[in-house]
Amino acid sequence: MPHPLGLITLLTDFGTADWFVASMKGVILSINPQATIVDITHEVPPHGVEHAAYLLERCCRSFPSGTVHVAVVDPGVGSDRRPLIVSSARYFFLAPDNGLLSHMLEGEKDIEVREIENERYRLTPLGRTFDGRDVFAPAAAWLTMGEPFASFGRTLESYKRLPVRLPHWEQSGGQAALVGEIVHIDCFGNLITNLSADHVKEWQAVAKRPNPTIRLLSHVIDGLVGSYSEGDSENPHVLINSGGYVEIFLKESNASRRLSVGPGEPVRLS
Amino acid sequence: MPHPLGLITLLTDFGTADWFVASMKGVILSINPQATIVDITHEVPPHGVEHAAYLLERCCRSFPSGTVHVAVVDPGVGSDRRPLIVSSARYFFLAPDNGLLSHMLEGEKDIEVREIENERYRLTPLGRTFDGRDVFAPAAAWLTMGEPFASFGRTLESYKRLPVRLPHWEQSGGQAALVGEIVHIDCFGNLITNLSADHVKEWQAVAKRPNPTIRLLSHVIDGLVGSYSEGDSENPHVLINSGGYVEIFLKESNASRRLSVGPGEPVRLS
Amino acid sequence: MPHPLGLITLLTDFGTADWFVASMKGVILSINPQATIVDITHEVPPHGVEHAAYLLERCCRSFPSGTVHVAVVDPGVGSDRRPLIVSSARYFFLAPDNGLLSHMLEGEKDIEVREIENERYRLTPLGRTFDGRDVFAPAAAWLTMGEPFASFGRTLESYKRLPVRLPHWEQSGGQAALVGEIVHIDCFGNLITNLSADHVKEWQAVAKRPNPTIRLLSHVIDGLVGSYSEGDSENPHVLINSGGYVEIFLKESNASRRLSVGPGEPVRLS
Repeated sequence: MPHPLGLITLLTDFGTADWFVASMKGVILSINPQATIVDITHEVPPHGVEHAAYLLERCCRSFPSGTVHVAVVDPGVGSDRRPLIVSSARYFFLAPDNGLLSHMLEGEKDIEVREIENERYRLTPLGRTFDGRDVFAPAAAWLTMGEPFASFGRTLESYKRLPVRLPHWEQSGGQAALVGEIVHIDCFGNLITNLSADHVKEWQAVAKRPNPTIRLLSHVIDGLVGSYSEGDSENPHVLINSGGYVEIFLKESNASRRLSVGPGEPVRLS
Repeated sequence: MPHPLGLITLLTDFGTADWFVASMKGVILSINPQATIVDITHEVPPHGVEHAAYLLERCCRSFPSGTVHVAVVDPGVGSDRRPLIVSSARYFFLAPDNGLLSHMLEGEKDIEVREIENERYRLTPLGRTFDGRDVFAPAAAWLTMGEPFASFGRTLESYKRLPVRLPHWEQSGGQAALVGEIVHIDCFGNLITNLSADHVKEWQAVAKRPNPTIRLLSHVIDGLVGSYSEGDSENPHVLINSGGYVEIFLKESNASRRLSVGPGEPVRLS
Repeated sequence: MPHPLGLITLLTDFGTADWFVASMKGVILSINPQATIVDITHEVPPHGVEHAAYLLERCCRSFPSGTVHVAVVDPGVGSDRRPLIVSSARYFFLAPDNGLLSHMLEGEKDIEVREIENERYRLTPLGRTFDGRDVFAPAAAWLTMGEPFASFGRTLESYKRLPVRLPHWEQSGGQAALVGEIVHIDCFGNLITNLSADHVKEWQAVAKRPNPTIRLLSHVIDGLVGSYSEGDSENPHVLINSGGYVEIFLKESNASRRLSVGPGEPVRLS
């Protein structure tokens, strides 16, 4: 378990037009005036737990060890779903137990999960609808003030995990294909898959060829390029992106909109 | 009057696509490099003074005593409307005298209102259209640097107040109903009213029953639930929200859009 | 060259819904935990280098001397376009060499341009598509940690400049007109031109009259007003805005939408 920094990140579906995020920041700074707060995003689609789980996993490891990551996409707020505080070898996480931490914790070591129970670290709320402000924000702030991890509540044996959608092999016409899918559309309209650079290597080892053909809908794309500038704006190209995943793009154009592709669409390497 | 912290919040209708907010932050950090700046929101609808007044009141008290709240929704910039600096028992506020502080100051004690007049605390502007950068940001920053409150300008006897829309009692069919209205739609589409938990208690005392029936348009809702998870996605339910107000919602769905309800719509407890 | 502050601004076209900006901040805070990071905007239209160059120039000088401005609108990422680190008499800038710094550097003195080459100041990337995180963020953070400017890479003789669109004089019907154009629509729908207060003075000197007539499409506007409050919501009025430029507006209304005017439209002083 790292020493907690005074660095707290926030990831929510609260948007930035309301006062919800500001309230959380006010609570944090009331407890720890020296805290540094970084917004990951507040534009998760409402109640989009799976979307948030994906985003969290994508960027948390860019932060220094000891960072306290607070993620609140919480359709079950006020129900008996448990509020979690988790430590790993590098980070702390606070989130409802609804699967939000699932992808992130997959890759972390020395995980210890506790329920946030201690009333000392909660606000006395007016209602039961805003644990972001009343439970998660104050607990995160108290953690950065040096309150012992074990004092937040009892250890839990497990936490909710979301199903992981991994690529799989398919045989078609005597040829083996590794089939993944689009899992995220970024703000440029690029199509990000769940096929990693390692999956490409796996395909190369099986196929004994360096360059896979990539199929998406009726598009057949030969091999990968190294950067966006090697593509063009009319024909989709493929590269390994900055997260280490296969990504399909149109150069300086919105591939998702122009190809009418969204998450879930299969992508085949063959 | 509290001791001013180096903590400044910003609430504007400037959006985040232009350079306006960044300019204000640059000015603040030029004067006080140690300031902590927190965005409340910049997505107030253009010139939405009343909307901003509502948001300000909703979240300011989550911040520690001594916080300097700067709110700039300022259609009258450059006219003779006065720029205000206000202290209360807990906070400082800087805003144009157009009603923006009205709801917030309602609940504050020991209010002292001054006009920002002292040229030492202003930038020399190129035009007369951006007091956020030229008047409010530098004054806020100088306040956090320890400049005496009284030095900003002369005391004012009054400030502009917006009309407060309070619930009222109506008689219909021999039955007393407490009638409030929708005052805010949050980012989830939840319908927030001006009926507080205290209003519900008032209704209970008059009606001598624990559970009010809530009427909105043709919807008749029996009693309140404790959290969103007790509702469903087809029928509106009602709870007391995290701000202590009656709120009508559809579980994990956008009630405003699906019921076609916006601010101003009456809500009856009977 | 100023002493670099621990103050870093970010300007990108990454939006705020993805994890890209958060990743840059995580990298910066991993290297310099004391850094203060200010967002200028992340809502530059995708690949809008010229738009970003305009915004950067508009607000950078509100920041204190020694600020490190990082601007990443980078359609050529991964190509041979060079990553720049630039010092001027007041600031530091990090950006791809695609013209993004062009307008800003126009007004700066003692400019020294270097290529970011030193591998010590880069992350080892998984891909070649995110220099914001892998090149610009770490270099900016290392600069604020006191690494010598000269150690980042070799000096460059030049950098890419965007064409500057300046107003020009036209003769029509024996009368001289100074013709500029709309260069930016702000979030209120105000129409900002490239005609500065100095251009108005130039026109006054030539025309030997105090008040120009301003022509935009079929609108003929007599003279300038001092503030928005002197206009009305039906007829466009003109003022010198907070940046020192001629701006056409409808009072508390969206002029761009209502007059159907966008960037590039000519504006005549005559």
